Amino acid sequence: MDKQKLQPLKGFRDFLPDDARKRQFAQDSIRNTFKSFGFEPLETPAIEYQEVLLGKYGDEADKLVYKFEDLGGRPVALRYDQTVPTSRVLATYNQQLPNPFRRYQIQTVWRAEKPQAGRFREFLQCDADIYGSASPLADAEVIALADSIYKNLGFENYKIYINDRNILFELMRDGGIPEELHFAVIAEIDKLDRRSEEEVSETLKLRGLDDSTIKHLFHHLEEEKPTDFLKKIIQNAKSLGVDGDKISFQARLARGLDYYTSTIFEIKIDGYKAGSVAGGGRYDKLIGKLSGTEIPAIGFAVGFDRTVEAMDQFKLFPNQKSYTQALVSIFNPELTQQSAIIASNLRNNGIVSELYTDDSVRLDKQLKYADKKGIKWFIVIGPEEVEKNSVILKNLESGHQEEVKLEDLVEKLKTPINPT
Amino acid sequence: MDKQKLQPLKGFRDFLPDDARKRQFAQDSIRNTFKSFGFEPLETPAIEYQEVLLGKYGDEADKLVYKFEDLGGRPVALRYDQTVPTSRVLATYNQQLPNPFRRYQIQTVWRAEKPQAGRFREFLQCDADIYGSASPLADAEVIALADSIYKNLGFENYKIYINDRNILFELMRDGGIPEELHFAVIAEIDKLDRRSEEEVSETLKLRGLDDSTIKHLFHHLEEEKPTDFLKKIIQNAKSLGVDGDKISFQARLARGLDYYTSTIFEIKIDGYKAGSVAGGGRYDKLIGKLSGTEIPAIGFAVGFDRTVEAMDQFKLFPNQKSYTQALVSIFNPELTQQSAIIASNLRNNGIVSELYTDDSVRLDKQLKYADKKGIKWFIVIGPEEVEKNSVILKNLESGHQEEVKLEDLVEKLKTPINPT
Repeated sequence: MDKQKLQPLKGFRDFLPDDARKRQFAQDSIRNTFKSFGFEPLETPAIEYQEVLLGKYGDEADKLVYKFEDLGGRPVALRYDQTVPTSRVLATYNQQLPNPFRRYQIQTVWRAEKPQAGRFREFLQCDADIYGSASPLADAEVIALADSIYKNLGFENYKIYINDRNILFELMRDGGIPEELHFAVIAEIDKLDRRSEEEVSETLKLRGLDDSTIKHLFHHLEEEKPTDFLKKIIQNAKSLGVDGDKISFQARLARGLDYYTSTIFEIKIDGYKAGSVAGGGRYDKLIGKLSGTEIPAIGFAVGFDRTVEAMDQFKLFPNQKSYTQALVSIFNPELTQQSAIIASNLRNNGIVSELYTDDSVRLDKQLKYADKKGIKWFIVIGPEEVEKNSVILKNLESGHQEEVKLEDLVEKLKTPINPT
Repeated sequence: MDKQKLQPLKGFRDFLPDDARKRQFAQDSIRNTFKSFGFEPLETPAIEYQEVLLGKYGDEADKLVYKFEDLGGRPVALRYDQTVPTSRVLATYNQQLPNPFRRYQIQTVWRAEKPQAGRFREFLQCDADIYGSASPLADAEVIALADSIYKNLGFENYKIYINDRNILFELMRDGGIPEELHFAVIAEIDKLDRRSEEEVSETLKLRGLDDSTIKHLFHHLEEEKPTDFLKKIIQNAKSLGVDGDKISFQARLARGLDYYTSTIFEIKIDGYKAGSVAGGGRYDKLIGKLSGTEIPAIGFAVGFDRTVEAMDQFKLFPNQKSYTQALVSIFNPELTQQSAIIASNLRNNGIVSELYTDDSVRLDKQLKYADKKGIKWFIVIGPEEVEKNSVILKNLESGHQEEVKLEDLVEKLKTPINPT
């Protein structure tokens, strides 16, 4: 086969165990934090009717949706985010669900973006949203949850920036910017994060805005104050445990997607350069657009890849080369059963163990395997040990080796009194 | 929007929290068992080049692969199973991986099957495989793992059926069945599980086999004995803790996919009618087909949907209507902060809590919400309680209600001395 095709497609990734273990660690922590706030799991299909997905994210985003016809000729598309599919679920099953409804969703999404550093065509999203409450208390719960996610992952220095899109809409109306340009202007303001005011000005001019309008916009972005609604969110988030130094109002925060209606927020980690690691906001009109019945909604998504990258940068992953704690080697083919019984016994006692899966391989090669995999304990049972009901136990971290009675083995591995 | 399109596509499913919680419970148990045997996680992309996937499963299966062109005009396809993508990974990264390499993979696959009861177009697969060992010990480890999966999920009565495809190949050669029909005949034998010998005979005749060949085939299927290789697997699986009553040889076991080369096995649960819940086997040629370098491989997949269905049938799921243990209600808008502080404190102490997210809703409606969601503890803090540094704690399961000092609340919820 064409060697090049043995690589994943551009923008797609294989995760070998060392990376997959980290991702699983991060995902477990995020899931547990979602659960600790009473968010319930939800799953939606990877494939939806195109009609469900398109027309909600904005024109630019719609282009990036993976679209195709299925075998029945239906125009379908791959999940682009989790907010729109969940809104479809809300539109369909609202009566069966508690109200307010708080759910989390951890699934893969696909976007046909131009592949570049840190941007992928397939990535995991971890979302949490509250449906059915227009109160700032819901925004505060969601922000407190986002804060706890990063606290529980082990981050110490990060900031939560919050804004209300209504501030931007009003500013644009005041400045005489026509309605039909509002989302385009928001998309440009969103770039102030990584581009200079001059660069953004240039693009705004291309959109047809004149100098004085742009000047008015930038000037007022500096002067805006948080609305009462935002003040309530911030106050309640603090009562819910968010450190006051970590949360602040930022008028130039804009967010990219069209569907946000008021509150928007982002989390940035100090010293992590790739941009915000999580973001979300209020989208009170989206479900109405799908079903005719409006249901207020507030939520956010964890940018999983960036979060994992930042955890790597700040060394927040446990130092673990393998799940396996003990390798039970095979001395010779005649003694296979004895080794198998020991491996089984260790597992039954909660010790992650492997039986070496080849009885024709020399012991030194088995040891090398254990060492390469980062397994701590190497166990040998030869004819002498069988006689004495014991094993040779070697600690591959320290090199220390001793004979241990079979009946003491589990205890020995569970509570290594002398870990060296 | 078209109401019909608010439903998932045929063969696809939304999982609302009550189902998603069960699926998460089962998935966690399966993942933990994989880990307890030292299997490491692996993730591969949902989208692959068509060339990678096609030509490995068999012609019938290839038709069911979701295929399309991506925006760059590349012929791509959705993950149909996890064995072929992992074989691609092995072909590409073999040098970086331990040898033997044991990995697990839990991801969604898509198959454009005709939707029918219990058959879906999108489903979760939970695979575990050992690469790089041709020894029956590897088969035994994998079978012991499959056995532990079902034991740990809580099943008591199930059977593991095992066979060697070489028995079938030899039988077909002896019977003079031409090579090019072997996989077609295997696919028919595979159906003996759910169809009569007469029905299968009819289809074999359509394939061009004559009566005496078919008779020879069926007759010998009854008479076959396990090979020495199979005997070793069974013996080692028993040493690894598999109950001898649970594992047995079955010559008519055939499995559907082309890529199996010798050992094949299936698990069936007594009293569960939909068919086998897990299955796998040895596929020593697949990686060579992709890369030119042969790597022996043995593994299996948990049929997740059937397993969950069987768990439901045998009531193996915890009786849990919600993750949330306590709802902190809001007495009035002035007392919101007090409620928020309590919710935050409970969470910090490991008690899953929600703050009710609307301060304009009457207490009885808040209580109704907690009740509908199946939350056990309902907490009220009104002006009197604020004065006394206490809360009203109501147990919604028993109806019992009492005043509890704030300093005692965590302890009270952690160890309910009188659970009624």
